[in-house]
Amino acid sequence: MARSLGEIVARFGGELKGDGAQEVCGLATLETAGAQQLSFLANPKYRVQLGSTKAGAVILSAEMAEFCPVTAIVTPQPYLYFARLSQWLSSVPAQARGAHASAVVESPVPLSVSIGAHCRVGSDVEIGEDSVLYPGVTVYPGCRIGRRAIIHAGAVIGSDGFGFAKDGETWVKIAQIGRVIIGDDVEIGANTTIDRGALEDTVIEDGVKLDNQIQIGHNVRIGKNTALAGCVGIAGSAKVGAGCTAGGGAIILGHLTLADNVHVSAGTLVTKSITVPGSYTGTVPFMPHEGWQKNFARLRHLDAMADKIRALEKRLAELEKKA
Amino acid sequence: MARSLGEIVARFGGELKGDGAQEVCGLATLETAGAQQLSFLANPKYRVQLGSTKAGAVILSAEMAEFCPVTAIVTPQPYLYFARLSQWLSSVPAQARGAHASAVVESPVPLSVSIGAHCRVGSDVEIGEDSVLYPGVTVYPGCRIGRRAIIHAGAVIGSDGFGFAKDGETWVKIAQIGRVIIGDDVEIGANTTIDRGALEDTVIEDGVKLDNQIQIGHNVRIGKNTALAGCVGIAGSAKVGAGCTAGGGAIILGHLTLADNVHVSAGTLVTKSITVPGSYTGTVPFMPHEGWQKNFARLRHLDAMADKIRALEKRLAELEKKA
Amino acid sequence: MARSLGEIVARFGGELKGDGAQEVCGLATLETAGAQQLSFLANPKYRVQLGSTKAGAVILSAEMAEFCPVTAIVTPQPYLYFARLSQWLSSVPAQARGAHASAVVESPVPLSVSIGAHCRVGSDVEIGEDSVLYPGVTVYPGCRIGRRAIIHAGAVIGSDGFGFAKDGETWVKIAQIGRVIIGDDVEIGANTTIDRGALEDTVIEDGVKLDNQIQIGHNVRIGKNTALAGCVGIAGSAKVGAGCTAGGGAIILGHLTLADNVHVSAGTLVTKSITVPGSYTGTVPFMPHEGWQKNFARLRHLDAMADKIRALEKRLAELEKKA
Repeated sequence: MARSLGEIVARFGGELKGDGAQEVCGLATLETAGAQQLSFLANPKYRVQLGSTKAGAVILSAEMAEFCPVTAIVTPQPYLYFARLSQWLSSVPAQARGAHASAVVESPVPLSVSIGAHCRVGSDVEIGEDSVLYPGVTVYPGCRIGRRAIIHAGAVIGSDGFGFAKDGETWVKIAQIGRVIIGDDVEIGANTTIDRGALEDTVIEDGVKLDNQIQIGHNVRIGKNTALAGCVGIAGSAKVGAGCTAGGGAIILGHLTLADNVHVSAGTLVTKSITVPGSYTGTVPFMPHEGWQKNFARLRHLDAMADKIRALEKRLAELEKKA
Repeated sequence: MARSLGEIVARFGGELKGDGAQEVCGLATLETAGAQQLSFLANPKYRVQLGSTKAGAVILSAEMAEFCPVTAIVTPQPYLYFARLSQWLSSVPAQARGAHASAVVESPVPLSVSIGAHCRVGSDVEIGEDSVLYPGVTVYPGCRIGRRAIIHAGAVIGSDGFGFAKDGETWVKIAQIGRVIIGDDVEIGANTTIDRGALEDTVIEDGVKLDNQIQIGHNVRIGKNTALAGCVGIAGSAKVGAGCTAGGGAIILGHLTLADNVHVSAGTLVTKSITVPGSYTGTVPFMPHEGWQKNFARLRHLDAMADKIRALEKRLAELEKKA
Repeated sequence: MARSLGEIVARFGGELKGDGAQEVCGLATLETAGAQQLSFLANPKYRVQLGSTKAGAVILSAEMAEFCPVTAIVTPQPYLYFARLSQWLSSVPAQARGAHASAVVESPVPLSVSIGAHCRVGSDVEIGEDSVLYPGVTVYPGCRIGRRAIIHAGAVIGSDGFGFAKDGETWVKIAQIGRVIIGDDVEIGANTTIDRGALEDTVIEDGVKLDNQIQIGHNVRIGKNTALAGCVGIAGSAKVGAGCTAGGGAIILGHLTLADNVHVSAGTLVTKSITVPGSYTGTVPFMPHEGWQKNFARLRHLDAMADKIRALEKRLAELEKKA
């Protein structure tokens, strides 16, 4: 569906440098956009692409406007503008509201909620207005999901936490009687799993964004607006603050506490609580395999290397005294 | 449902220090329990919480009993006692026995088995008495599952192992004709996947506990009572002993053998067989990102550092000879 | 079903050293095969098993033929021969063609396609001839899947990429309007997830093999015949070349480019583009936990160790000058 730039600016703001009657019918990158498409320049390092763009118009900042060869929408935060616009212009069909006939829904849900094919919503579940569950989502009994949730296919909410007591050599299951409580505006990726609490609840606060294949253990609390990338694992009873991020595959061990605004790099294993906001990393550089074999074997002897350095320092000091 | 402490002690043992007519209707932590709830003290480091607990009664060891301000159930293993009791007092509704109408079940299963909505149980599958498959579990044809299994939503049992032969630049699939054989009392977490064997079977022995999002490759054998935390990956043909544990995200490479009672730390990559029981770790400490950048770049030069130390030792020895 | 060796050689080639009328009814390893079964010897290191095999016949190379105590099928590439034969002799029942009654299929698909129970195929999806979707696969609207695809249970194709713009402390979703485009002869493992592109498409080229629980971010491109092992994560906009491999749990960060024929070891985090074909590794050796604690703590002081070595070199040089 075509939209005029004038209509876009009227709705989303920004300063239009060009003809308000000009129409666009979708979004594309600077490199691929045609005359019917709107593009954006958020990162100044892509300015070179601006010169040659075939886009009908470009969303950009005031600093970049002078370099724009086509119609411009000028706004202080082009990426944010683009994000808002992307939802309005999206060409992907929205899943219908209501529960698909094949879904098994054992709790009443608001009419504005969309429940996809083969979803399972257990008893005593509450789901807030305007939420979307894509196909094959499972919500175990007793869980709470806020408003405007987006839950992707195959996600599992409320499976049992991993809790056992040892009885000699065997394990005795601890019934997991807590729930999962999810705030408003939370997005949960495909095949992500969130375990119910053991005694207390697992809590995902408002505005949290979880990518695909994330595992959240029992009793975990994830603070407001925290965003976790794919394959992250948060072990049981960890408390992650608000405004945190974690890169792909990061693991946070159990019972730890992360302050607000902590950023964990991809692939990092967090083994201690973090009380100071900031970025934290614990990964090793990769190398061509042969160099790595020679080099990383040294890791087993790091302690010995440190001892050798200390011994050298001592011997050298003695020689220096004599000289 | 309320239960008297007398009834609990009659059923689960332990010594009651208080009134057997006192009733409780659920479990809670020392911090959150109210007068109607039973709590437990398993780890002596939480003793301080005992003093201020509002719980109706507390399960604890004889050593802790003197510090208990409320009714006590004294037992040598409070955590195990709590585990057993938790199942009996669980307030989470059990999934009904039999197969949900939406499940597709192509093999006969005992009446005592509970098969959730949208499960798929292929042909020639056997499932033992009292097992529970939560919604959306897939069991491929030919697999065997023992008694009292608990399989959480989205788990996949018996998908093809990852086996291909190279034909020039392309891959030719090797049909995966083995099965998955699962013993008794096994729990399998949400979205965990267990591949069928290539020629022989993939075997999960009795009492094994698998957390969520674990990947078990073809021909793997996991020994009795081994417990693996979330996101663990076991590559093809690895043999893991009995009584082992692995922390979250640990990876065990293919064709390795781990002895009984081997404990692999979270995030550790196991690249060689382990013949001696014990704990094994291979992870790096995390740091504030800036320090990490300066420090970990050295890892690429570890071999050069070792060479420098050797050269220093030689030069120093010569100087010492002269002096 | 029994097959004569003569029939096998007529169909798959190779030189038969024995009686063409001899029949076999399946495949097995050298160690477990009986007289009715065919086995293979691909890796010369297993030659010792050849001497004691009870197999009815063995597929092997000319060099190994002299050591074969039973009927032999001689071929230059025994493993490839075995792969081809395995498909023909497979005893695992093939999933029926057509869509299972419980599947929700909103696009027309060829009659030769097999769609398992509880699959969801959205609108405007195209699936090529002879493809198989095992139970519980979700294909979001607009995606394209080539011919002869094999997609295992629980895989999700076309979920939203993880894209948000920051608005103060909250995240604004960027509509993900690209598609997933999958070539011919692609296999996708159980519970693997492939996100749709943000503006452009996520592309999986012909012949790619993806194991279980892999996460592919938005706008990623995976080149022809690349094979990725279980639990690999490829972050958004990464471009992986043709003929690449990655071991289990490897992570490739976003916006990187990997050349053709790059091989990433299991557990390796790729943080920079790789332009030269070859094998790359970045992992740490594991050790008994106590040794690891003492040794790996040094990692935090690697930079200080390098400084100490430099200081020693300087002091030693001065002493040497004097001597």
